[in-house]
Amino acid sequence: MSTENTPGGPAPAARTPRMPDRAHPVTLREVAEAAGVSTATVSLVVNKKKSARIAEETRQRVKDAIRTLGYRPNAMAKTLVSGTSKFIGLVADGVATTPFAGQIIHGAQDEAWKHGYALLIANTEANSELEQDAIRMMLEYKVRGILYSTWFHRQTDIPEQLREAEFVLVNCFSDEPGTRAVVPDEVQGGRSATEILLRNGHRRIAFINATIPAPAKDGRLAGYRQALEDAGVAFDPALVMEAYPDQEGGYGATAELLKRDVAAVYCYNDRMAMGLYDGLRERGLSIPDDMAVVGFDNQEVIAAHLRPPLSTVSLPHYELGAAGVRTLLGIDAAAEGAAKIHCPPVERASVRAQARA
Amino acid sequence: MSTENTPGGPAPAARTPRMPDRAHPVTLREVAEAAGVSTATVSLVVNKKKSARIAEETRQRVKDAIRTLGYRPNAMAKTLVSGTSKFIGLVADGVATTPFAGQIIHGAQDEAWKHGYALLIANTEANSELEQDAIRMMLEYKVRGILYSTWFHRQTDIPEQLREAEFVLVNCFSDEPGTRAVVPDEVQGGRSATEILLRNGHRRIAFINATIPAPAKDGRLAGYRQALEDAGVAFDPALVMEAYPDQEGGYGATAELLKRDVAAVYCYNDRMAMGLYDGLRERGLSIPDDMAVVGFDNQEVIAAHLRPPLSTVSLPHYELGAAGVRTLLGIDAAAEGAAKIHCPPVERASVRAQARA
Repeated sequence: MSTENTPGGPAPAARTPRMPDRAHPVTLREVAEAAGVSTATVSLVVNKKKSARIAEETRQRVKDAIRTLGYRPNAMAKTLVSGTSKFIGLVADGVATTPFAGQIIHGAQDEAWKHGYALLIANTEANSELEQDAIRMMLEYKVRGILYSTWFHRQTDIPEQLREAEFVLVNCFSDEPGTRAVVPDEVQGGRSATEILLRNGHRRIAFINATIPAPAKDGRLAGYRQALEDAGVAFDPALVMEAYPDQEGGYGATAELLKRDVAAVYCYNDRMAMGLYDGLRERGLSIPDDMAVVGFDNQEVIAAHLRPPLSTVSLPHYELGAAGVRTLLGIDAAAEGAAKIHCPPVERASVRAQARA
Repeated sequence: MSTENTPGGPAPAARTPRMPDRAHPVTLREVAEAAGVSTATVSLVVNKKKSARIAEETRQRVKDAIRTLGYRPNAMAKTLVSGTSKFIGLVADGVATTPFAGQIIHGAQDEAWKHGYALLIANTEANSELEQDAIRMMLEYKVRGILYSTWFHRQTDIPEQLREAEFVLVNCFSDEPGTRAVVPDEVQGGRSATEILLRNGHRRIAFINATIPAPAKDGRLAGYRQALEDAGVAFDPALVMEAYPDQEGGYGATAELLKRDVAAVYCYNDRMAMGLYDGLRERGLSIPDDMAVVGFDNQEVIAAHLRPPLSTVSLPHYELGAAGVRTLLGIDAAAEGAAKIHCPPVERASVRAQARA
């Protein structure tokens, strides 16, 4: 097998590594000629075949020629030798429409590069035809494996084509036994959100949950109940409300919230908290004096920039991407069911210590 | 050259395309055996060599065997034949930290796929070491070319390594003559933003510009002045203010704005407008009745969800990505300097028609 990176053309007389003649990348053959060895020998040196018996002096001559000519080994030729490429595929469904997918990409890329892999990313925007094309493309490029990720934490079907590769689900999971997955720890996150309010003296704490069924809805509620129980506060179902999980939903829930006679509320997400801020202000109420507010997501562009800045819990998207790569490569052991990633609390000025008992 | 996609192992007796034995992907040799032809013939059919004289009946037998066995040609083997891969590289500096990069990715990917290219995306978060690694990796994968993109529109230096590939700057530009680039049309965007207010009867229109030097700062101001001039409104420098381009900056500018005796303001970006909303509300002022507000960016998660929803101008990130690919592939002719992409206005409830003259 040849590792030549171009079908050739005569070598220009002189070259510098910095300014190669673009029409004619340096070929393996040119390196061989410059070093006075066969192309096979260059290939062995380039592919770091330790078992090959090549004199150290010859090896050095090849390396010098590579440096002088500015030769770039062809990463894809190596793939043909090893059977899989140094690619990890990442299928993501919301790169363009949510700020969350970016952090998954960031974490996955950092971890992949650490281990010598490049990320092949495809954005599907939840279009199943695009998704099929993306997975097919990744299989053709012989990826080491595929991370299949969703922008919101949910159960997913496993696309048939995905089964042709090693894969790890990221921010989603399957009920098929043995499927590897990493997801945020929603229960711990809900507990942490509630604990911010408890720690500051609040006992009557409302929770505005989402109307839309999701693991986050169940998990964040379970965490809220655990935190109350741990603090010896009886769970009052009347304090749990539901609204559509965006600004308009939070705004619309304001009147109902104010009927509950509470001074503390934990919202299912930051967008909801942003709308609630508007609803409270319109009624002349102040945050945190009249109402302490905690959100969830630590959403870029919103949470830190509300007035006052919002206490919340971070969704660990960066860590989900990184853990997905480690699981794929077998560095992290696969958990029974899905591995749960910690959601760190972030305290800001929307909560103030209370003297209440 | 062989296009075998794995170093082998004996073929299992029976296979279905849907559930391949993962340890042993179907090889070119197995296809050859099933079709009763040489591996060279299979390779010619797979690589669609039209010049090769192969009987139609033989060609069909090979195709049937490929379908039956579920053979996947190795995309990277084709690369070795053609010299460049079917990859386009996209270097992006803010995938994880801004929602803008996602739309550039989306547009570039859609356009790349349309022409049979896959995108190789690298996120650099403005780290120059990561950037060098990313470009080096793309060169090793013999990309057709590289889109070098920044999350905010700015002048950029051209990294030395980038010169080894064909490249197009996306959302950034260089003063080196002949450099291909696509950028948003800031002047037209600023004109469109101002025209929303003019069309609704406003004549005294304040502009809160950014403190930070940027092409957007100059362009959006130039557009504001053009729109006023076209409408026969004299430019009044006292109506142009500056603030840091985020929520806190917009909030902090409220008092100064109110000294100007205006009922209409155009903000440099949506984040600034969001802060200004808070400042106006704290003073009991209503939008749009007391103050009509227009932003810029049409930022996901903010603009459509403020109360009232914000009139603004879209940054055309999707189109920048798509136009970048078209320019790279020579489908769009390169413009003198940089190609300017239209920024479409989006009207929402933050502006209401006035009877003023």
